[in-house]
Amino acid sequence: MTTAVCPGSFDPFTLGHLDVVRRARSVVDDVVVAVARNASKSALLDAETRLEIVRDALSEAGLDDVRAALVPGLLVDFCTEIGATVVVKGLRGGADLDAELPMSHMNRHLAGVETVFVTADPALAHVSSSLVKDVARFDGPIDDLVPAGVGSVVRAALQSSKGA
Amino acid sequence: MTTAVCPGSFDPFTLGHLDVVRRARSVVDDVVVAVARNASKSALLDAETRLEIVRDALSEAGLDDVRAALVPGLLVDFCTEIGATVVVKGLRGGADLDAELPMSHMNRHLAGVETVFVTADPALAHVSSSLVKDVARFDGPIDDLVPAGVGSVVRAALQSSKGA
Amino acid sequence: MTTAVCPGSFDPFTLGHLDVVRRARSVVDDVVVAVARNASKSALLDAETRLEIVRDALSEAGLDDVRAALVPGLLVDFCTEIGATVVVKGLRGGADLDAELPMSHMNRHLAGVETVFVTADPALAHVSSSLVKDVARFDGPIDDLVPAGVGSVVRAALQSSKGA
Amino acid sequence: MTTAVCPGSFDPFTLGHLDVVRRARSVVDDVVVAVARNASKSALLDAETRLEIVRDALSEAGLDDVRAALVPGLLVDFCTEIGATVVVKGLRGGADLDAELPMSHMNRHLAGVETVFVTADPALAHVSSSLVKDVARFDGPIDDLVPAGVGSVVRAALQSSKGA
Amino acid sequence: MTTAVCPGSFDPFTLGHLDVVRRARSVVDDVVVAVARNASKSALLDAETRLEIVRDALSEAGLDDVRAALVPGLLVDFCTEIGATVVVKGLRGGADLDAELPMSHMNRHLAGVETVFVTADPALAHVSSSLVKDVARFDGPIDDLVPAGVGSVVRAALQSSKGA
Amino acid sequence: MTTAVCPGSFDPFTLGHLDVVRRARSVVDDVVVAVARNASKSALLDAETRLEIVRDALSEAGLDDVRAALVPGLLVDFCTEIGATVVVKGLRGGADLDAELPMSHMNRHLAGVETVFVTADPALAHVSSSLVKDVARFDGPIDDLVPAGVGSVVRAALQSSKGA
Repeated sequence: MTTAVCPGSFDPFTLGHLDVVRRARSVVDDVVVAVARNASKSALLDAETRLEIVRDALSEAGLDDVRAALVPGLLVDFCTEIGATVVVKGLRGGADLDAELPMSHMNRHLAGVETVFVTADPALAHVSSSLVKDVARFDGPIDDLVPAGVGSVVRAALQSSKGA
Repeated sequence: MTTAVCPGSFDPFTLGHLDVVRRARSVVDDVVVAVARNASKSALLDAETRLEIVRDALSEAGLDDVRAALVPGLLVDFCTEIGATVVVKGLRGGADLDAELPMSHMNRHLAGVETVFVTADPALAHVSSSLVKDVARFDGPIDDLVPAGVGSVVRAALQSSKGA
Repeated sequence: MTTAVCPGSFDPFTLGHLDVVRRARSVVDDVVVAVARNASKSALLDAETRLEIVRDALSEAGLDDVRAALVPGLLVDFCTEIGATVVVKGLRGGADLDAELPMSHMNRHLAGVETVFVTADPALAHVSSSLVKDVARFDGPIDDLVPAGVGSVVRAALQSSKGA
Repeated sequence: MTTAVCPGSFDPFTLGHLDVVRRARSVVDDVVVAVARNASKSALLDAETRLEIVRDALSEAGLDDVRAALVPGLLVDFCTEIGATVVVKGLRGGADLDAELPMSHMNRHLAGVETVFVTADPALAHVSSSLVKDVARFDGPIDDLVPAGVGSVVRAALQSSKGA
Repeated sequence: MTTAVCPGSFDPFTLGHLDVVRRARSVVDDVVVAVARNASKSALLDAETRLEIVRDALSEAGLDDVRAALVPGLLVDFCTEIGATVVVKGLRGGADLDAELPMSHMNRHLAGVETVFVTADPALAHVSSSLVKDVARFDGPIDDLVPAGVGSVVRAALQSSKGA
Repeated sequence: MTTAVCPGSFDPFTLGHLDVVRRARSVVDDVVVAVARNASKSALLDAETRLEIVRDALSEAGLDDVRAALVPGLLVDFCTEIGATVVVKGLRGGADLDAELPMSHMNRHLAGVETVFVTADPALAHVSSSLVKDVARFDGPIDDLVPAGVGSVVRAALQSSKGA
């Protein structure tokens, strides 16, 4: 059985991410969503919150056999530890692939971990974590872009970061 | 168990194709190389020869549990018939993905068949069927670009097409 | 008032083309669909049939104020003749733009005609004339990719071209 | 009559931006240049200065019927408020489009605002706000890249930011 | 001293090609324009005519120390024969590079010949042999896209191919 | 004799950079590696350290006739000062070129300096300064990605930046 990892910062997890995980699960039996503990310093949500959102979303989506975990260091070290040999990433177009290629070759070089790419549902092509935050920052509607309940978590975090 | 299909004209099958099949096999347990019966009219080799080359190459590479078959019509019909739910394609870069996207969305639309992309070994980035034929046409060396024995088949076919 | 031209071979006109025309019409008041008389030699449908399909589709879509015409020669000559100063093209991604750029600069150079690009509905990203014909050639379903009635015209033309 | 918006940070407005506005104006009768109030924190010029530069440049270029305004929040809210249904963006190549696509789909999703793309004059392909600032930072000449008078504003701002 | 080769079909040689040769010459002292004898079957002009046009254009442009020759077979064999170690190609954008990469890696693999890329003058970005022929085919003006005298050669060849 | 400059931040210099310098040297007789003094604020290594690493790597690689120097300001000013007329940059694919194009056109515009592009060894496609630092930050192995001795310098700098 192949174990595959879907890595990301998930700041926050969106319906686009969920779509990629679902497609990964349709190809491979054992899928683990890997939440980077140390996302860039500009992360809005802390790692535990990001993980909790992923778990709730998977459960609500009926993907109960997909696990989620925090990755404290190098992704390939995490893969080795849990016995995963494959990384799954979603792509919207060629530009996404060109951006992913060096990392995928690095992971192959470091630990023989293979990256496979799936294409997201085109209807979700506009949904990225950063764009979701940009919209929310100006009080735009994001609830149909993220799993249930995530919108209010993002809005609360933005509110508190403004207050800081 | 997921069954995945690696489709192509394979005119001829190259070491680049073999690399993609090997990576597909490392992700999915059951892989079928699907040789398009009706490749474009400019195909150098007939379908049976292309299939035979694939089978010999798989066997020689120790990929004995990977099957190969001719596809007479639509790829998604072939997938449905053999119970395959996944297509695997190799990519060299973003331009390749942009060229593959419409077909992958079409296959998803027609039959729910998902396409996953793997990236070829960069050391094989220059190896394509058409470039192999271009080199051979001018008597350049191709034997280190294709599986053993394929070079002479290509050269013979080129010779006989010149004679025609 | 600006007059804009939506050019193409439309072999055949698809729901993707219709989507682009509709978007062009939402930006510019006067839109003309320009059907290239001399498409490449591998055109399946003759020019009059392609034009008729466009007219029927526009009418059925309620785009009654969008005209359609055959272009016998250079697109910019046609633009000059009807007083159009703008060409509208649909894009799916960066690769499409890179392919369109030389022609758009040429039209600007030859006659000061400006090209503006709209992005198609991502849900139609897989719908191109050539892919529609590929699917139909192998008896795949195309009726939800083209305007009503077009599917049977395409199938009849393919049937008769096989017979030839 | 269609109203179109040309959005940007314009930090500073360049001859490339002016070229895009002029092309937008050749397609649509009513054009508004929309200056983002809250550009990224690394903006060199404050919003009022950026707006003033735009207004001076439009006036000097004879584009007197093109308005300019500050956008305090979401671009689509601004569009709705002034009755604009179209956003116009300039592109240099496919990479630019791939970067713009998610935002354009988001604007369509949020408010039905359509984005149309024009291609800049290739002779201005090297002129971007960030490159202009990079050159000026090292005392390179920028006066032929920006509207009259803008060079000295940029140099003064850079001087004062060094002093800070 | 490095000898560099500028290869192409040059069907016909355009001002864009001339621009690339000039840039090649500004980097390397010894430049040879290599005209492919066997261009694709759809070549409009025969090899000798294409070579003669190149020679006239080089001479007229004052590039008297740039040679031109027909390449009968593989480009790398020609390079080896004349002692050239470098191929120079012009690029308009990323899409051009992606199309050139496999061939450049192949030439490096076959004979250690390195390819270096120069970027054409953006003002010539719309000038390609195929677009020049498309324009001429419909009686459009091409004389400012090609070296002096080439326009009439192209028009005569198109006339005679119509007659055939 | 042409003098060419290979510019970069080199934070740190990698085997990918060395590969590009070697290819530059195979095309042009006189090559200078130009280390930007003021790299972005997030530079890990100071300019003198980056320069020293470059010099050691060139010496160890037998590229003794390639010089290295710090560039205090605009690259084109440095080129003018040392009489260089060419900049050489390495590319991995089309996305890299699209990112480099504006700067290359700017350098041509500012000082007539031409940029030529070489393609890196595909086997080094995953080796970039930023990815090397990302791997080292999580204690991954980088010694086979950088010249001898550089790994320990990077690790020490990361250690000391954590302590700060």
